[in-house]
Amino acid sequence: MTVPVTAPADVDAIVERAATASAVWKRSTIADRVRALTAIADALDANADELISIAQRETHLAEARLRGELKRTSFQLRLFGEVLEEGTWLDARIDHADADWPMGAPRPDLRRQLEAIGPVLMFSASNFPFAFSVAGGDTASALASGNAVVVKAHRGHPDLSVATTRVVRDALASVDAPEGLFDTVYGTQAGVQALKAPQIQAAAFTGSISGGRALFDIAASRPQPIPFFGELGSVNPAFVTRSAAAERSQAIATEFLASVTGSAGQLCTKPGVLLVPADSDLEALFQQAALPAAAPLLNPGIADGFRTSVEQTAARADVSVLAGAPTAEGDPAPVLLKTTAAALREDPEGLIAEMFGPGALVATYDDEAELVAVAEVLDGQLTATIIGEASDAVAAELIPVLSTKAGRVLWNQWPTGVSVTWAQQHGGPYPATTAVGSTSVGAAAISRFLRPVTYQNVPDALLPAALQDANPLGIPRRVDGVLEA
Amino acid sequence: MTVPVTAPADVDAIVERAATASAVWKRSTIADRVRALTAIADALDANADELISIAQRETHLAEARLRGELKRTSFQLRLFGEVLEEGTWLDARIDHADADWPMGAPRPDLRRQLEAIGPVLMFSASNFPFAFSVAGGDTASALASGNAVVVKAHRGHPDLSVATTRVVRDALASVDAPEGLFDTVYGTQAGVQALKAPQIQAAAFTGSISGGRALFDIAASRPQPIPFFGELGSVNPAFVTRSAAAERSQAIATEFLASVTGSAGQLCTKPGVLLVPADSDLEALFQQAALPAAAPLLNPGIADGFRTSVEQTAARADVSVLAGAPTAEGDPAPVLLKTTAAALREDPEGLIAEMFGPGALVATYDDEAELVAVAEVLDGQLTATIIGEASDAVAAELIPVLSTKAGRVLWNQWPTGVSVTWAQQHGGPYPATTAVGSTSVGAAAISRFLRPVTYQNVPDALLPAALQDANPLGIPRRVDGVLEA
Repeated sequence: MTVPVTAPADVDAIVERAATASAVWKRSTIADRVRALTAIADALDANADELISIAQRETHLAEARLRGELKRTSFQLRLFGEVLEEGTWLDARIDHADADWPMGAPRPDLRRQLEAIGPVLMFSASNFPFAFSVAGGDTASALASGNAVVVKAHRGHPDLSVATTRVVRDALASVDAPEGLFDTVYGTQAGVQALKAPQIQAAAFTGSISGGRALFDIAASRPQPIPFFGELGSVNPAFVTRSAAAERSQAIATEFLASVTGSAGQLCTKPGVLLVPADSDLEALFQQAALPAAAPLLNPGIADGFRTSVEQTAARADVSVLAGAPTAEGDPAPVLLKTTAAALREDPEGLIAEMFGPGALVATYDDEAELVAVAEVLDGQLTATIIGEASDAVAAELIPVLSTKAGRVLWNQWPTGVSVTWAQQHGGPYPATTAVGSTSVGAAAISRFLRPVTYQNVPDALLPAALQDANPLGIPRRVDGVLEA
Repeated sequence: MTVPVTAPADVDAIVERAATASAVWKRSTIADRVRALTAIADALDANADELISIAQRETHLAEARLRGELKRTSFQLRLFGEVLEEGTWLDARIDHADADWPMGAPRPDLRRQLEAIGPVLMFSASNFPFAFSVAGGDTASALASGNAVVVKAHRGHPDLSVATTRVVRDALASVDAPEGLFDTVYGTQAGVQALKAPQIQAAAFTGSISGGRALFDIAASRPQPIPFFGELGSVNPAFVTRSAAAERSQAIATEFLASVTGSAGQLCTKPGVLLVPADSDLEALFQQAALPAAAPLLNPGIADGFRTSVEQTAARADVSVLAGAPTAEGDPAPVLLKTTAAALREDPEGLIAEMFGPGALVATYDDEAELVAVAEVLDGQLTATIIGEASDAVAAELIPVLSTKAGRVLWNQWPTGVSVTWAQQHGGPYPATTAVGSTSVGAAAISRFLRPVTYQNVPDALLPAALQDANPLGIPRRVDGVLEA
């Protein structure tokens, strides 16, 4: 695979074209945008065979997984089209002038909506070459909300990035979108240069804590700091209650292992820590389980990183190997390590840390109160899972604590396989994400690249369509404080 | 006036108590919170005479202005109560499980709402001792959304901060709010210490660019970066079209001067630059105008800063004095400086800069196209104003450009006097604010200190009330993508 690098002058030109195109696209109609999103989705589907073939070669992910991911990617482009047409995303508010406003001074006519923020820089992820890459969720959200997009390709799948960029650009050209609305840059320096470019008004990232924090710091230290939507890392702890372990330990063991080893454990929502009752048979079930065979990881760097984190954790006095072979040569084999809930509480930073690959840590507890105590020492997470029975008293204690630690709290389901829906939330407190108020998946992601603008006393003919008296877009609006759906 | 300083151990204790109280308050009912906000509003009103008397002594602002500001402050506490009860602020979304979800995999049951982010640190402003201070908008928003508040008092009004803190704490105690839910720290070091405290989950600030940027940098460089809602500075340019100047120059001159010199020019929305046609009589009207007498500013530092910025600007070759006395001793007198639109375009950073006090820069233009050209070189602004006629062709060009530069765009009204309403927006691109997606005034400010959480497959009895099937709160919700108001 050849890894292209975009020259500095070309980065400048791409960013400048994006700024020009963004100003035009900001004024595009909802119909224009739906047409563009649909054209990209159709083109991705039409080119699926070619794209998936390149992705298999570059990422070593299985064909079925990649086909599912590509379907999800075109689906989310179309879902943003539905979101656009529904119109609530504009958060349109109209306050008519009111001489008797009880604040103590007359209220002027005020009309507020959300508008495009400007060109968005999107750093692709290695582990989702479609859904969190060139044509992924942030690209869909940014285009939907009226912004140009500059993608920083991931070095792990350069040929796929080139091919996907061509598909997206051709699709946009076919619907006469502005030239320069979408383009891709290659190479670490090109990404940093684009992040520092004054034209760029927001950035999004999915990847490691170290890489994401470095980019967040650059975004925050610009002369004009910009919003940085980074997804950095998550352990996704899962808590098995005593009664659930007693009722259905075999199913729990099987499902947990499937969630840990799917996509060779290279998912941001992989459950990395499982708390189980010490006196259950779960430990024995894991020891007897037939773990999947070793599979190639995304790239040698990720394989090395996984092996190192497993070795370092296994070398601790409070950790032992429960199942699998932690130090194998070649492709890393799945592995389960073992510790105690007490050890997690003693050293949460050391033990509750992401192992990116097919491994997890099983921690035994003696008393269900330890579940709440472990929850209380967690860092921010994308997800937290309870495997329990509705009659478990501990659940009512655990859920409110977990809701302060994670963006998604699950009950008797596993966190991998993130559904793209209206109510999805993918993002939690730091370090799970750097922008805790936001999601990177689902309909609410359209709010990322928007900012509010209020028009005061502006004549109807000069107002944006969403705020005109006649409501020409037919969207839900809040008028004088009352939501009119 | 004695300026109290909170000792480091006391800051630690206050922050720790806030964290404990915040966890309790997060689970409070909407009724609990409305009761608390109402109690504070009532207590502020009941103690108005005492508070205003202290405020007059410490800030030199006029009694009528302070009475209006206090009324606004108690009003916005009550408005947040209305916002809470209406319920849209929760952004409740319910997706039922759907085996045929077209993404390609079954959709689980997903339910999403916004929840309190955790303890909020609020830096008070000097120029609004009530509305942007101890019991101001960010305090109201944070308490309404279920968070504890730690206020950093402004050194400009310490006695008022102590008195207001007592009023707020007594009011909260009267409704049995958790101990430690609200407290105040004093001194620069105490503020920085609190900002670095791991318990603090968000911060808000209103003040200067230099001070705000320093605090933003601290918030961004924490091990866990936190959202920092800073309002830093704004010039609030106003654009007078040729026809408006021809139609009603006297009214424009009078209204502009009133907006510039109200509260001695110490408002974040003061129009600091006015563009007028060179061939209108506006220049002459300003020269003949009776400017208000010099009035004491908030404190000697602000007076010195104003004098310095006026002197430095007036000393430029492309600037002259239009009206007033820029170098007076004692209280600074109102002053208008004069330049050209061409000069603004040549050096926007040097000329389009905040002069905090009773002064402004009047810039003449020859061609209305210069209005658009000046708009294009603007930095981020809280507001931008057009004084025009509906028939002005330039308006349709100017409004879309100004909407990319400012959070509020006004037509034939002046930007000072920010109304607290459902549709208000107070916040624009940097440096106007550091969090461009947010507002510090109005109903939408309730979103500042919230974060989304999705519950997957959680039994009804374990869900937060807003997400339970029966909709016990009776709030608008999005169910399977459809908004049910």
